[in-house]
Amino acid sequence: MPVHSGELRLSTAGNGDVVDLTDGVESIVVASAVQHGAVSVFVPGSTAAITLMEYEPGGVQDLGATLDRLVPQQGDYEHNRLNHDSNSHAHIRAAIMGPSETIPFDRGRLRTGTWQQVVLIDFDDRPRERTVSVQVLS
Amino acid sequence: MPVHSGELRLSTAGNGDVVDLTDGVESIVVASAVQHGAVSVFVPGSTAAITLMEYEPGGVQDLGATLDRLVPQQGDYEHNRLNHDSNSHAHIRAAIMGPSETIPFDRGRLRTGTWQQVVLIDFDDRPRERTVSVQVLS
Amino acid sequence: MPVHSGELRLSTAGNGDVVDLTDGVESIVVASAVQHGAVSVFVPGSTAAITLMEYEPGGVQDLGATLDRLVPQQGDYEHNRLNHDSNSHAHIRAAIMGPSETIPFDRGRLRTGTWQQVVLIDFDDRPRERTVSVQVLS
Repeated sequence: MPVHSGELRLSTAGNGDVVDLTDGVESIVVASAVQHGAVSVFVPGSTAAITLMEYEPGGVQDLGATLDRLVPQQGDYEHNRLNHDSNSHAHIRAAIMGPSETIPFDRGRLRTGTWQQVVLIDFDDRPRERTVSVQVLS
Repeated sequence: MPVHSGELRLSTAGNGDVVDLTDGVESIVVASAVQHGAVSVFVPGSTAAITLMEYEPGGVQDLGATLDRLVPQQGDYEHNRLNHDSNSHAHIRAAIMGPSETIPFDRGRLRTGTWQQVVLIDFDDRPRERTVSVQVLS
Repeated sequence: MPVHSGELRLSTAGNGDVVDLTDGVESIVVASAVQHGAVSVFVPGSTAAITLMEYEPGGVQDLGATLDRLVPQQGDYEHNRLNHDSNSHAHIRAAIMGPSETIPFDRGRLRTGTWQQVVLIDFDDRPRERTVSVQVLS
């Protein structure tokens, strides 16, 4: 029986670093040998998010600048006070954007748009090691 | 073997146009003949999102006005500058809201609330043709 | 055949009340006897959302304060005017955050982070009874 799930291990720079997962997700879909279905991509941890976007420098910069404006790193944050921490903004952004997306595929190819990539965004305020879970569903 | 997936093709006006997909999604669930499971709804393209909301004129207007305020169409956007484009706000909104939702169903009926519809929101700044992927999972 | 879905019934205080669903979701996964897969968690209703976050008082307070600032309860809302209602802010927040997340599991355990819980956030402006749908997918 083929394995229907996999993990992507990666290092991020934190601070809103955006990592393109598309090839990694697609390789797990191909290895599953499932022809048609959907693949669920999930990041463990409460300071990172999964979404899809056009992975190009301008869009990455604009999304980061927008989140810096809407949910600033500096603020009167209770999480930071209670836990002697500094990443409350990362928790808030991750909770709003969410840690999972589910993407259809057909014959091993994600049915995404041409300019649409699966990305991890790491909002934490330091470099992190992340392990993304990829689950093939059919 | 019944087909377990389908597509919804539609034209949108862009500029935050909200399209109710509920009946289309439910018809694909019925055609699948699967009795119990969940259905994943995904929009290809990086300037549109899938979510659920009460599809009524007031809520549609309020969501649009809120996003216009939080992520304005006009702004100092690097995506627009680098790509001679005008829809960076659409990319940002789509990335924050996300392109997929997964909805349970039972005997062909979505288990949504009475005043809760599955919608596509097209944030692009021009009319678009969209093809939404619907994948039945059990 | 084991049942592959379940419901979590709960009372919320509304007004941004955050309820930890992790144990309830995990108990439905265990009861399904499915060893590996993903579980989809969905809230019916257009004034509540499902996400994951570190469920601790500081983070809960900071997320609430951020949403109060970005999408205020008081505002010039058409939904409230048209429907003689008072919860347009709740609809907007729920639509942005979304009603579903899909989470991988392995041998009955959610593959979430150590400080990452599955939560329902009830944005409505009054106490509510909620029934969350949990669907096990493999």
